[in-house]
Amino acid sequence: MNDESKHPDTDNEAEANRPLEINGVRIEATFAEAFDMKATRVIITAMDEIWAEHAASAMSGFGTSVIDCKLEIDIERRLLPSETPDGRPGIALLAFAMSGGDLEKQITRRAGQCVLTCPTTALFAGLTDEVPRDKRIALGKTLRFFGDGNQISKVIDGTRFWRIPVMDGEFICQHDAPRVSGIGGGNFLLVARDLHAASRAARAAIGAIDPIPDVITPFPGGVTRSGSKVGSKYKSLIASTNDAYCPTLRGITDSQLGDGENAVLEVVLDGLSYDAIAEAMRTGIRAACSSCGEHGLVAVTAGNYGGKLGRHHFHLHEILS
Amino acid sequence: MNDESKHPDTDNEAEANRPLEINGVRIEATFAEAFDMKATRVIITAMDEIWAEHAASAMSGFGTSVIDCKLEIDIERRLLPSETPDGRPGIALLAFAMSGGDLEKQITRRAGQCVLTCPTTALFAGLTDEVPRDKRIALGKTLRFFGDGNQISKVIDGTRFWRIPVMDGEFICQHDAPRVSGIGGGNFLLVARDLHAASRAARAAIGAIDPIPDVITPFPGGVTRSGSKVGSKYKSLIASTNDAYCPTLRGITDSQLGDGENAVLEVVLDGLSYDAIAEAMRTGIRAACSSCGEHGLVAVTAGNYGGKLGRHHFHLHEILS
Amino acid sequence: MNDESKHPDTDNEAEANRPLEINGVRIEATFAEAFDMKATRVIITAMDEIWAEHAASAMSGFGTSVIDCKLEIDIERRLLPSETPDGRPGIALLAFAMSGGDLEKQITRRAGQCVLTCPTTALFAGLTDEVPRDKRIALGKTLRFFGDGNQISKVIDGTRFWRIPVMDGEFICQHDAPRVSGIGGGNFLLVARDLHAASRAARAAIGAIDPIPDVITPFPGGVTRSGSKVGSKYKSLIASTNDAYCPTLRGITDSQLGDGENAVLEVVLDGLSYDAIAEAMRTGIRAACSSCGEHGLVAVTAGNYGGKLGRHHFHLHEILS
Amino acid sequence: MNDESKHPDTDNEAEANRPLEINGVRIEATFAEAFDMKATRVIITAMDEIWAEHAASAMSGFGTSVIDCKLEIDIERRLLPSETPDGRPGIALLAFAMSGGDLEKQITRRAGQCVLTCPTTALFAGLTDEVPRDKRIALGKTLRFFGDGNQISKVIDGTRFWRIPVMDGEFICQHDAPRVSGIGGGNFLLVARDLHAASRAARAAIGAIDPIPDVITPFPGGVTRSGSKVGSKYKSLIASTNDAYCPTLRGITDSQLGDGENAVLEVVLDGLSYDAIAEAMRTGIRAACSSCGEHGLVAVTAGNYGGKLGRHHFHLHEILS
Repeated sequence: MNDESKHPDTDNEAEANRPLEINGVRIEATFAEAFDMKATRVIITAMDEIWAEHAASAMSGFGTSVIDCKLEIDIERRLLPSETPDGRPGIALLAFAMSGGDLEKQITRRAGQCVLTCPTTALFAGLTDEVPRDKRIALGKTLRFFGDGNQISKVIDGTRFWRIPVMDGEFICQHDAPRVSGIGGGNFLLVARDLHAASRAARAAIGAIDPIPDVITPFPGGVTRSGSKVGSKYKSLIASTNDAYCPTLRGITDSQLGDGENAVLEVVLDGLSYDAIAEAMRTGIRAACSSCGEHGLVAVTAGNYGGKLGRHHFHLHEILS
Repeated sequence: MNDESKHPDTDNEAEANRPLEINGVRIEATFAEAFDMKATRVIITAMDEIWAEHAASAMSGFGTSVIDCKLEIDIERRLLPSETPDGRPGIALLAFAMSGGDLEKQITRRAGQCVLTCPTTALFAGLTDEVPRDKRIALGKTLRFFGDGNQISKVIDGTRFWRIPVMDGEFICQHDAPRVSGIGGGNFLLVARDLHAASRAARAAIGAIDPIPDVITPFPGGVTRSGSKVGSKYKSLIASTNDAYCPTLRGITDSQLGDGENAVLEVVLDGLSYDAIAEAMRTGIRAACSSCGEHGLVAVTAGNYGGKLGRHHFHLHEILS
Repeated sequence: MNDESKHPDTDNEAEANRPLEINGVRIEATFAEAFDMKATRVIITAMDEIWAEHAASAMSGFGTSVIDCKLEIDIERRLLPSETPDGRPGIALLAFAMSGGDLEKQITRRAGQCVLTCPTTALFAGLTDEVPRDKRIALGKTLRFFGDGNQISKVIDGTRFWRIPVMDGEFICQHDAPRVSGIGGGNFLLVARDLHAASRAARAAIGAIDPIPDVITPFPGGVTRSGSKVGSKYKSLIASTNDAYCPTLRGITDSQLGDGENAVLEVVLDGLSYDAIAEAMRTGIRAACSSCGEHGLVAVTAGNYGGKLGRHHFHLHEILS
Repeated sequence: MNDESKHPDTDNEAEANRPLEINGVRIEATFAEAFDMKATRVIITAMDEIWAEHAASAMSGFGTSVIDCKLEIDIERRLLPSETPDGRPGIALLAFAMSGGDLEKQITRRAGQCVLTCPTTALFAGLTDEVPRDKRIALGKTLRFFGDGNQISKVIDGTRFWRIPVMDGEFICQHDAPRVSGIGGGNFLLVARDLHAASRAARAAIGAIDPIPDVITPFPGGVTRSGSKVGSKYKSLIASTNDAYCPTLRGITDSQLGDGENAVLEVVLDGLSYDAIAEAMRTGIRAACSSCGEHGLVAVTAGNYGGKLGRHHFHLHEILS
């Protein structure tokens, strides 16, 4: 589902020559740098929308960043009953981890604590079977043992499901789910004249990104303000606040913020493909600019590590052209 | 805040002689067995209700059970701006862990991933200072290092706060938070004629418990259906499905379910004191019985391990008298 | 925007010969009969999503049926900031009335009570200018007088707006909005084995209809259970309960309900065109059948008056083919 | 339930001599003037929370002001299943009109369009029977005729209910509801340095008022910005914008707004008693001041007509003392 690396070295030079504005908002000639992750989609269904929301909310909480959550996971979209495997209200989630092992471990653990436990729910894979058999994430394959030998397996059209006895009846759980390659760390930064404007622009962007398939924005509300640089004056820390974008540090650091640039928020994106992330970035940036250009959004930029960390580069000028 | 152990041995005998019904619902003569935990309350505030909800939802997700989440954490209640330290909309959360070390580690980790990251938020202790200085949970004490030396400390009325530079301005974070003794594992089970009735009774109970202070119900929507027994036929598992309450296993196990008892849901409670849990159990059970006695709720019971595991016993007949 | 009457007489005969089922759900060989209405779309924007929701909720309340509400009005969809005239979060509403005069009167009244009053909001037309100048609904044209002479008019690109001084600044309100022909009374009935199944099927249908443009389902939650027949044994009433579809009257009326058909819910649709309503009916019926065929949805039918009342006929078999 | 008129003339003089501040916010020495209304409480229940919300939202929409809505109606609070007459999730609404006749007409009309129509709902009186038999609001007494002769009456403990056959079974509806005297037009104005601060203070006030029983704030989100003065330069209008509080008119009118007072929002309250409104005003004002004193809330004042219009006077200094 993922496509090969794009633009690994190229064209900072060419970019720098093209000034770009959208509705008066300056688009910096830079790029977001993203890296490979392992990903899957799972579907939670329930007797009604209320239980489905409870399970999905639990499953996707504390899943903002692999740094300390181990998993980046978020609701991708609500599913109509007519779109779910069992005709019940459902919710699709996308999850990303740095390795296939991490992905499986975290998904199984979360499913056991947040779905197996939740009244009336069932759990299904949300990707079709394009992936070879040996690259799969265990779901019921692991969770079934909770049934203490009374779980029942059933194969329907080549897919295995487990019926695990629980106090409200049976927990229906697909045996496993395909694992695919994904991309993490797509991003853009919204530079605004004040916090109200930055908040407004960020919500406009997230609202526009929300319906796009194959992509999530795992930070709270889709947005973060704790942008980081690699390294720290404290030896034990591998990252610390991104001084160059902290408005209160303008006087004492080599700041990237100009006059009237007093609040910055960042949208971080994980996706199943380069194209999905590019589409989400394009849509989100355009939405922020078109709605907030007159209202305090000053510039859009992106975060990278000089191209050394990740092989996927999203050049702002290119994806917005 | 916690009171000493109550009713460690006593009166199964006396109980068994008192049949008890509430609105036609049989209350079993048994008790919930709960154990000691370490606890704290934190308060998240934000520029508006929307960002506060995003942060609190992230912070409290994947926090249903210490078994695999390490922490049991949930929203205790929304706070009015007039109730928060900085006059902004806020949310109080209660968190429980098996040890003080676990509690600190998980709170710091979650605050770093879910609050420090979230636009416009601040983080405060939610308990007053009754606890000696050496039993406290680090908040800003640890998170401040993200500021890479540019964080600023300020003491107001004897309380230390940190101002950590981030891209949207500063993250205000209290230095640390008191740690107290709490109780985990309060519980009751709702036995119903079908899943619709069990779901309805569970929501009635949770709705009634919701406003009670000092207590949370950390499972999804406050409820679980995956009740467990100690042990399993699989050696590597320490717990497995509670056969005695699984309606589909009635024919093949020594079932606790009678005729017409076809769905069971469990409310699990953690609280800052015995009294808070007892009050929540009383309120929740009464709400379920009074509203669902005519509508399929058949019995209320509770889970224990014969009194061997936890020193806090909540005898249903006693707390409902 | 509306197209001419379709299928005024035709093919009951042909229909009756074609049995149709979707996922085991019987589709009756009948049609929904709908009639001409006058319609418009308005857009409410606000400083943030919270105020926009408050205004739209007030504006669209008590707007289920022209019989006693005078107006049928509902939220069509949330708009991204990038989709609104002023770059703020917004909500589009569709409104339908039996005459152009009624439509104008009710829209002006509601806008004056629910939008002019609501903090931070603005009000815009949501249809483009295809309609001749004399067929328009007054918005600011009437509301401006609240400004007591201090209102200011401004024409931008040929469109007139009013700036009306209020206590939070100015209420920006477009001068007027185009009025178009619409269709009211599209409908289908979901016949189920019990109330749980009917409720579930109705929500599945409404969820699927929700994203379809140009159409609303104005009853509470999009659904009604008070289907009516023309006439009553009480002379002053022009309509009364539709006995033929009341499960409790099966023994004493000429019932349309067979064995195992114990609960019926109706989805009623108003739209800007025949095609929009047909698309919504098709989508809603398919969603209900595909998700609830195994779960108690027995049949789908539709309401008509023998073709005498409305000139728009939606034959179920035809729109589902 | 209402108490007699208070402070009809008194003490403007005394007030003027007492300067009052709460957390730095100036409290003007003035009073809110309120008048007599007729009131009732109704309770809507449903199969689950989702249908109950749909019905209550429809029933309470377009109910901001008697001027053009005829009725002021809002959700008072959500009810637990254990608090409702039929043990189901429910919502209590309070409604106010200028006469008993208006109240009955509007309640019946709205119940017929918004509750009778809504799947699974029932409708009950929400006040106990302290009112003489001839001062009651018809509910089922009128709505029953929809049953076309097949409705059934049942008296339980002296209270009459109707079972009206509808397509999803039966609509249960209490025969009538007590009517009481109420008070409309309690109010206070929040004067802030900008719109963000005014919005924040208004939400803080409304959040604090929300749990108080016997009172509603019927404007959108509880707040209005379209304060009015009696009279207009246009003869046909009886009221127009309150120039004295419009920030954009400061240069051309006799403004009440000082320097740095750039946005004003008003909370309007209807209540079942003087004490309920006074308690809500006190709570709301204190919440706004305590949370927004440092954040741009400058003053609190109130609206009156010199004491000529309504006999209930809420002196700010007195209720806050």
